[in-house]
Amino acid sequence: MTYFVGIGVGPGDSELLTLKAVQTLKQLDTLYVPHAHSGQVSLAETIAQPYLKTTIEIKSRRFPMVRSQTVKAQEWQKIADEIIADVNAGQEVGFLTLGDPAIYSTFSYLCNYLQGKIPIRSVAGISSFSQIASILVQPLILDNESLAIIPANKDPQQLEQLIDLNDNVVLMKLAVNFAKIYQILAQRNLLAQTTVIERASMEQQVIKTMNQYHPEDKVPYFTTAVLRKEHTDAIQKNT
Amino acid sequence: MTYFVGIGVGPGDSELLTLKAVQTLKQLDTLYVPHAHSGQVSLAETIAQPYLKTTIEIKSRRFPMVRSQTVKAQEWQKIADEIIADVNAGQEVGFLTLGDPAIYSTFSYLCNYLQGKIPIRSVAGISSFSQIASILVQPLILDNESLAIIPANKDPQQLEQLIDLNDNVVLMKLAVNFAKIYQILAQRNLLAQTTVIERASMEQQVIKTMNQYHPEDKVPYFTTAVLRKEHTDAIQKNT
Repeated sequence: MTYFVGIGVGPGDSELLTLKAVQTLKQLDTLYVPHAHSGQVSLAETIAQPYLKTTIEIKSRRFPMVRSQTVKAQEWQKIADEIIADVNAGQEVGFLTLGDPAIYSTFSYLCNYLQGKIPIRSVAGISSFSQIASILVQPLILDNESLAIIPANKDPQQLEQLIDLNDNVVLMKLAVNFAKIYQILAQRNLLAQTTVIERASMEQQVIKTMNQYHPEDKVPYFTTAVLRKEHTDAIQKNT
Repeated sequence: MTYFVGIGVGPGDSELLTLKAVQTLKQLDTLYVPHAHSGQVSLAETIAQPYLKTTIEIKSRRFPMVRSQTVKAQEWQKIADEIIADVNAGQEVGFLTLGDPAIYSTFSYLCNYLQGKIPIRSVAGISSFSQIASILVQPLILDNESLAIIPANKDPQQLEQLIDLNDNVVLMKLAVNFAKIYQILAQRNLLAQTTVIERASMEQQVIKTMNQYHPEDKVPYFTTAVLRKEHTDAIQKNT
């Protein structure tokens, strides 16, 4: 029985593919990829490339993010129907995700159109926040702490509550709401405990603490912040 | 320059090692492993085994979790001093973590004793909750949602607030506080939306929803619950 599989290729470092992702890539007959601008190959595709069959069929498709519900649903349904036909024709069909397919991925949306119609699998990948913790050599959670992953474009009141309530916080998509996040952290005297990482693992990677910024600064699209409130020696605290 | 490295070997499936973890394991001269009972080899060690040099020195050490702060700190400091000596003697020294070294790991505690003394690195691994999402083929976060990772042994009031405030919740260590978690979810009519997974990826894996349990049930040590409040078609909601 063939299936449709979402494959997490990790945060961008080609060494952070899992063995299972490599095995899965090698078996694909067809790979659907989001249509890129002007013939560019996506980072996810570049990472997967060395493992793909030479005979693989790559189907580049547009996944529109337009305002109209009807137009969007129609376009996505069309791609879903193609995938269903390919799987039913006996092909192993794949879809790539940077990071993990369960974290902010197009794959999850696509599954809405496929669930119950064909078998679907997912191969977990290293998420961007795991990779950032590894670059910083810093724990995300210890002991009985909590960790929240929060997109910076959440409603400001919810942002404040989530930051107040959790022991550890990863703030994603920082670029879209930098000034507000800065203000919330400044009010709580948490700027120095918040590590900001711009373009993690990329050539122009920058690591600073939040107090090295100004609230009106512009940060790159791939910027994430990690707040760890507990700075004492955790093993001692826990005794 | 040699270093000390924490290596995430993933959630238990040997295929969920990353290529980088494999490369790192191959270079180790010395591996520190927590002392196991009666000569048993840990799951993490079993996963790593095929990639280790035949000449590797495996140092089994006790990492005591005793009540006395002083005794604990002394014992850990002794192991840390050994690691520092090995690294300074030109060895690549490793430590294994099931899942990810940044998530609830002994490696993080050990780093407290090593930071600033020798170079430390960390190789990210697939966390148990990523693997669970992949088994369920279910998103952990979409769009502008938040995700909280919460240990079930947190203070009950904090548990309630975190469950109320977040869009998605992963409840770890469910066995230690099952009745309370059941009660909190029941009060909020969230039992049917909470998926429980016992012994993920293991032979006796069980997947049920929370409403298939009774509050007084005992669940195995490796039990995790995933709550996803949003059950509508996310892509439609988002338009």
